[in-house]
Amino acid sequence: MSKLEDLKKCLKEVTDLGYARALAEWDAQVNMARGGAEDRGDVVGTLVGLMVQKFTSPETAKALEGAEKEIAGLDSDNNDVRIVKITRREYDKYAKLPDGWMAKFARLTSVAQNAWEVAKEKSDYAHFKPYLKQIVEMRREYASFFAPYDHVYDPLLNIYEPGMKTAEVQAIFAALKPEQVAIVSEIASHPQVDNSFLLKDYEGQKQWDFGVDVITHFGYDWKRGRQDKAVHPFTISVGLDDVRITTKIEKNWPSASIFGTIHECGHALFEQGISPDFRHTILASEISMSVHESQSRLWENLVGRSLPFWKFFYPKLQALFPENLENVSLDKFYKGINLVEPSLIRIEADEATYNLHIMLRQELEIALMEGSLEVDNLPEAWNAKVKEYLGLTPPNDAQGVLQDVHWSNGYFGYFPTYAMGNLLSAMWWEKIHQDIPDLDSQIEQGKFNDLLSWLRKNIHQYGGKYEVQELSRKVVGSGIDPKPYVRYLRDKFSKVYGF
Amino acid sequence: MSKLEDLKKCLKEVTDLGYARALAEWDAQVNMARGGAEDRGDVVGTLVGLMVQKFTSPETAKALEGAEKEIAGLDSDNNDVRIVKITRREYDKYAKLPDGWMAKFARLTSVAQNAWEVAKEKSDYAHFKPYLKQIVEMRREYASFFAPYDHVYDPLLNIYEPGMKTAEVQAIFAALKPEQVAIVSEIASHPQVDNSFLLKDYEGQKQWDFGVDVITHFGYDWKRGRQDKAVHPFTISVGLDDVRITTKIEKNWPSASIFGTIHECGHALFEQGISPDFRHTILASEISMSVHESQSRLWENLVGRSLPFWKFFYPKLQALFPENLENVSLDKFYKGINLVEPSLIRIEADEATYNLHIMLRQELEIALMEGSLEVDNLPEAWNAKVKEYLGLTPPNDAQGVLQDVHWSNGYFGYFPTYAMGNLLSAMWWEKIHQDIPDLDSQIEQGKFNDLLSWLRKNIHQYGGKYEVQELSRKVVGSGIDPKPYVRYLRDKFSKVYGF
Repeated sequence: MSKLEDLKKCLKEVTDLGYARALAEWDAQVNMARGGAEDRGDVVGTLVGLMVQKFTSPETAKALEGAEKEIAGLDSDNNDVRIVKITRREYDKYAKLPDGWMAKFARLTSVAQNAWEVAKEKSDYAHFKPYLKQIVEMRREYASFFAPYDHVYDPLLNIYEPGMKTAEVQAIFAALKPEQVAIVSEIASHPQVDNSFLLKDYEGQKQWDFGVDVITHFGYDWKRGRQDKAVHPFTISVGLDDVRITTKIEKNWPSASIFGTIHECGHALFEQGISPDFRHTILASEISMSVHESQSRLWENLVGRSLPFWKFFYPKLQALFPENLENVSLDKFYKGINLVEPSLIRIEADEATYNLHIMLRQELEIALMEGSLEVDNLPEAWNAKVKEYLGLTPPNDAQGVLQDVHWSNGYFGYFPTYAMGNLLSAMWWEKIHQDIPDLDSQIEQGKFNDLLSWLRKNIHQYGGKYEVQELSRKVVGSGIDPKPYVRYLRDKFSKVYGF
Repeated sequence: MSKLEDLKKCLKEVTDLGYARALAEWDAQVNMARGGAEDRGDVVGTLVGLMVQKFTSPETAKALEGAEKEIAGLDSDNNDVRIVKITRREYDKYAKLPDGWMAKFARLTSVAQNAWEVAKEKSDYAHFKPYLKQIVEMRREYASFFAPYDHVYDPLLNIYEPGMKTAEVQAIFAALKPEQVAIVSEIASHPQVDNSFLLKDYEGQKQWDFGVDVITHFGYDWKRGRQDKAVHPFTISVGLDDVRITTKIEKNWPSASIFGTIHECGHALFEQGISPDFRHTILASEISMSVHESQSRLWENLVGRSLPFWKFFYPKLQALFPENLENVSLDKFYKGINLVEPSLIRIEADEATYNLHIMLRQELEIALMEGSLEVDNLPEAWNAKVKEYLGLTPPNDAQGVLQDVHWSNGYFGYFPTYAMGNLLSAMWWEKIHQDIPDLDSQIEQGKFNDLLSWLRKNIHQYGGKYEVQELSRKVVGSGIDPKPYVRYLRDKFSKVYGF
């Protein structure tokens, strides 16, 4: 299969450039002094430009066409078949973009990311606005390259969720929303639980150490990655064997680092579990973000906010912070970390309200893309949606429209994958409990091997081999379905709040 | 000048790839977990391959030829003229290499660097040997592409020192060696000074803080760089405005971090001082390494090991480490840090013996390149040379042949630039004192502005615009001359040792 080999050689070069770019972006957020931003934007722009150039070159096109002939008749589940098919999918996507478009966009978002950081620090939307305007304009332009489409948001959604339609997501959200709202209001009608013990001084280094202990138990491989601090935590692979996570320590809110670290570790376990057979291929990188988020949310919530988990880890946490937790019982602690209350910051939101944060963002993104909302009016629109969905008013833009890194990165279309990830995580969870009946008692003993092995076998190893609905059907027999998540929320919070 | 603009556009792309590669190498030494080494080697190989591909492309060749016509008749000192001439020099160099050679070499050294780290840790030459064999083989092959040459070592030397011949360096070293040996033996015939106070526990964090204080006084711009720890300290620019240094803290030997930090800062001040007009051009990167080392050695030794410097900084150091230094007078401290004694580790060597470390390395490199020495026999040859030059026998390879990072990086031809840098630093120093008569008293007050401004004006701003001998003639009226350095050593050590 000589054309297939040619194709793989081209994909290797693209992969290497992708890792170089990932490193440049990791470094910009973790290490770089502000002075480096301009040069870094150029570097990222050049790397992305070359990636696109290589990926859409006549040599790739020829190898791809040849490889398509070579794989004809092979089983559709064959890895090589998938490599060729997904390369075709992505090739056709990039082929629609004018020369230099991706490089220009990468340069813009690299600089915009820095501007967003400054703007967030000062809670100064005006500082970020000119960059966001350009980003929105370029994202609308991006969508236009894919016309005709069913919905202007489809091409953006498909960057992160290949094969899905906006209408499909909207239908899922429409089914989910009333259930989610009903649960939140049922909770609100019951006495609030106490989490005042979380609002005390927790030494940063001990928070860090606890997080490290937890994810080491989970199976995060420190020989193939590292953890650093970042303003907005993220996970990034700068190699198949170098999967890095970041976390954020807040002195008076240990939940940020505990659940943030676990969340990113969930992503990292996925990346560390991709089959080495997929090294340098498109199957190691083009992964459904909903599936990815299903992993981060599964570890963060279904494991990390569960009673079995804390049966094992709470004594350790108590020993680190006796001054705050000595007199807090496990039951009280468990309820406290699961307190439900509409709040301003998505990444700190509880499980019952989290998806509401997502829905409001998706509506704003769609409005920006449709042109029914202008960037100038975004803070007001944001605040109105927060009022509508959560009944709150952000006191400033840092806690409002500037809170997320996504838009400065150009990630329009990404948010819905968090909610779909939540739904998938509950679907996997029901199946995992069927397959590992004593999972809870394993977790109570700090054992995560069987769980990790299950995830490796059923999800991680495949990387981007399957689109989300296909994987979902393969693992649990149906496409994305809100019901298991709703069942999970009802079951959990009826116990926490006693209804 | 449309061809010149085309040429600059090509150089910008090459520069961006160079920064991406620099970041990949910085990260490999500062951050990366060992598991990442294999992928990182691929990334570096791909980046270097693309750099060479872009730099030697038909487009560059055409733009270069066109630009050569466009600049005809312009003043030879004009920046554009220099950009074109130096591009031609480098283009002709790369054009001699077969396709893929540089990428293959970069991949090899990226992996070899990691193997060297492991080998050094375990003092296990055998672990590093297979990589070094390949590196030496490829470096000999590299030289062969430049045949006929006056000396097989010339093409390697010219990587770091364009325009110089091995014979020229050997002549300088031949003039220097007897003088240097005479000074060392004169010192040896006098009573040894005491530096026992340096062989105590010095808390790492305080060493770090002191180094930061010193280089902040020098004018290191923290908005355009950062400092980290590394096994083998180095300076690297990952952008014109992002110049990073690394240092090493040894608990029982504060000289390592103090003088190491100052040395790297000297390199960084050079890089931070390059004219912004040279952004994205070859003048910002293709710099004489002797001139570069003249900056690191000037700050490390002529400033950092001088009495005026310590008149200002010693009280600060005493205040940080009263338990070790309270009863050590300034005079005793100054003499102690200037103790001369043949020793095993180059980067810890005193000024009087340092060049001997260089000369022995150059002789070994030449022998390896000539083929009169095999990699198999290198540890024995190393130890024999150390015995000959320094009268010592390394107790193990970690303190012998494995001590330097250079060979794992493929840097054959680099070492002589350290010694030439020493010679240049003393030449500059005599001229600086003529131009700034009260420099010593400025330094005694912790003021380095005038010194830095002089260096910026006479050296830093030019980057790689001038080859070393041309710059030397421009600044002090003559080419590289060992006499000022010998005068400096005599003057200094006659006072320290009283002869």
